[in-house]
Amino acid sequence: MTLLSLNSSSLDNFLLQKLSRVIGHAPIRIVLPSGSEICPRDATPAGTLVIRDRQTLLRIILSPEIEFGDAYTEGRAEIDGDMVEVLAAVFRALSGRNPGSWFARLSSKLLERTQANTLHGSREHIHRHYDLSTDFYKLWLDSEMLYTCAYFESPSVSLEAAQIDKMDLVCRKLQLQRGERVVEAGCGWGAFALYMAEHYGVRVKAFNISQEQLAYARATAKRRGLADCVEFIEDDYRNIRGTFDVFVSVGMLEHVGTENYPALREVIHSAIGNSGRGLLHFIGMNRPRPLSAWIRKRIFPGANPPTLSQMMPSLFEPWNYSVLDVENLRLHYAQTLRHWRNRFERSTDRVAQMFGEQFVRLWRLYLAGSEAGFVAGSLQLFQLLFAGSECRQIPWTRAHLYEKLQPAKQEAKWMHAAS
Amino acid sequence: MTLLSLNSSSLDNFLLQKLSRVIGHAPIRIVLPSGSEICPRDATPAGTLVIRDRQTLLRIILSPEIEFGDAYTEGRAEIDGDMVEVLAAVFRALSGRNPGSWFARLSSKLLERTQANTLHGSREHIHRHYDLSTDFYKLWLDSEMLYTCAYFESPSVSLEAAQIDKMDLVCRKLQLQRGERVVEAGCGWGAFALYMAEHYGVRVKAFNISQEQLAYARATAKRRGLADCVEFIEDDYRNIRGTFDVFVSVGMLEHVGTENYPALREVIHSAIGNSGRGLLHFIGMNRPRPLSAWIRKRIFPGANPPTLSQMMPSLFEPWNYSVLDVENLRLHYAQTLRHWRNRFERSTDRVAQMFGEQFVRLWRLYLAGSEAGFVAGSLQLFQLLFAGSECRQIPWTRAHLYEKLQPAKQEAKWMHAAS
Repeated sequence: MTLLSLNSSSLDNFLLQKLSRVIGHAPIRIVLPSGSEICPRDATPAGTLVIRDRQTLLRIILSPEIEFGDAYTEGRAEIDGDMVEVLAAVFRALSGRNPGSWFARLSSKLLERTQANTLHGSREHIHRHYDLSTDFYKLWLDSEMLYTCAYFESPSVSLEAAQIDKMDLVCRKLQLQRGERVVEAGCGWGAFALYMAEHYGVRVKAFNISQEQLAYARATAKRRGLADCVEFIEDDYRNIRGTFDVFVSVGMLEHVGTENYPALREVIHSAIGNSGRGLLHFIGMNRPRPLSAWIRKRIFPGANPPTLSQMMPSLFEPWNYSVLDVENLRLHYAQTLRHWRNRFERSTDRVAQMFGEQFVRLWRLYLAGSEAGFVAGSLQLFQLLFAGSECRQIPWTRAHLYEKLQPAKQEAKWMHAAS
Repeated sequence: MTLLSLNSSSLDNFLLQKLSRVIGHAPIRIVLPSGSEICPRDATPAGTLVIRDRQTLLRIILSPEIEFGDAYTEGRAEIDGDMVEVLAAVFRALSGRNPGSWFARLSSKLLERTQANTLHGSREHIHRHYDLSTDFYKLWLDSEMLYTCAYFESPSVSLEAAQIDKMDLVCRKLQLQRGERVVEAGCGWGAFALYMAEHYGVRVKAFNISQEQLAYARATAKRRGLADCVEFIEDDYRNIRGTFDVFVSVGMLEHVGTENYPALREVIHSAIGNSGRGLLHFIGMNRPRPLSAWIRKRIFPGANPPTLSQMMPSLFEPWNYSVLDVENLRLHYAQTLRHWRNRFERSTDRVAQMFGEQFVRLWRLYLAGSEAGFVAGSLQLFQLLFAGSECRQIPWTRAHLYEKLQPAKQEAKWMHAAS
């Protein structure tokens, strides 16, 4: 039997079988306009994938990540049921397997080539995502504008509180002391830099290459009377100069790319030497895998979440740095994304006015897909605390992270004001 | 000027300079019988190294680790002052440098070759250290006979309490549930296996290849009425069979050797599959380095503490396991060793009766050197919690590790008795 000898419905069935294999026989129903469908035999389907035409079906089989993403964005594919559950089912089914066909792997590699994180490349990449429009991000981020994983003491905590708790958790992991000098690489809209200064009395230099974010950060610093303690610098992490007690970076490492880890390592060492300490908060992987090609093509150009074993040898071993603490917060990122997605869905009319209907679908898939990635475990979120070989501020235990520190924080605030 | 044209004192001075370079110009005084000495110029010396004859001096220069260890054991070298401080000063001075001369590196490599951790080799190695005599270890370990790093809630906690707290910390990290099946690889004298069964109501299979330890463990299980819940098996970790909810190993990985990580990985996966979880507690390094050649030659044949980035790719990545939590407890191992050393020093008469004076000196150096290694940071102690890709018992936060759980533990004990 060849493709040519098939009647239309047999061809559809053949292609559905093929697609089912491509998505690891995930327990989802797949439906075509012809009425042909494939349904899992032994499991309740997590939901239904509707594909609007045969050409789309063929393209998805050939390059599933990019073509499904684009088809969904353009309305040529649809998900019926809980989007996160459907996508998580696919991610789980694919989790034990090597990545895709030769064609998909080749496209992925080519994308990597064209998206190198040079000084210029990084600026382009960051501009494309983070400079979309602060008004857009305001629609669905928390009021402090934190666009990184929050920390939920329990799942019922609000996003606003969980973002504050995340910032405080990082400060406590770093055991920030009043008067210390902190450098932050990749500071977003500046909330964390300002939090450290306000609540822990430290002086911060915060780097970012997103113009729009920095303008917002500087305005906030001024409004809150913190412009003297926090300096926002529009420059690449590779151009960080000066000496500091602490290096911190929340949500930047996944944009750096393994090829730039030696440069980042030298920046860290030149900043904090052998006696300082630092924390990296980043999206990572269980094993070396390129991030979804669609996400890299349409959302985060140049993104490259590493495994722990990819980042440790380049970043820490040459300077004999110690890894003190690694915490995996992937369920917290799933929860954070759930909040963002709910807020986003309540603002889709406004988003459509700003960027059009396709943009709404693109971001819906990106947010749901990211949530599914953290739910299924294809993505991890690591907070990694490290110290130079001569660091004297090694915490004795981690118990201090779990004490209620509100009164102490109030005092720190006061101390800073008096300094 | 050649060596031959030097007078005796010039030669000694030349060799002292040479030795000072070999130990990284560590701030210690070195004295020879001739009266020649070298003293740090810019720092208070951490103590004095006395070398009894020129031949010893020459040998230490050529192969410092092994020759200094043997010279100290045989009384041809002495340390005046705080032994841990002196050794830590040397380790710190060497921490930024590549390991030793070509001769020292070659000896180290040869040792590695002759000490391969085959099934037979491992049995020999473990026998040599752990079967010395339970009576000997009783002299200086805690009453539960735990020969691994304790967990001190604060530095003033007793060793006995800190060992109990360590066991409980590991149980809480693993979130052990009543009735679960646990496999322990390398169970020492059995204390932890018994603790898990008694306080968390789990069923344990515990593997060890040290006969003397196992005899002790079985007798204890019988005495405490736990022989039904804990099975002690005299076999290599490579021969673990059966399925379990949890894999745990405290203080074994550093004896496994990187070449056996693939075998260990398959053992773990066959034991807990994709849904289980596990914890490895092990001595590690900041960067790949062979353990002191003297320690491997005289104390721990075949020992090989890995870096995190050496063990993760072999042990976790192929099966898509997640790293959930890494805690570095090196200061706790320094504190544990301080307790052991103090107890050991109070029992040296008895130890000398059992094994002779040289054995006392050998163990004094081993205990002080290990303590110095953890103080200086040449050694790390990692507790690493991991989970299979389908594990449903991912802790939401780590706060439960720091709650006072005594009443709950009592209840767990009761539940087990009733089961």
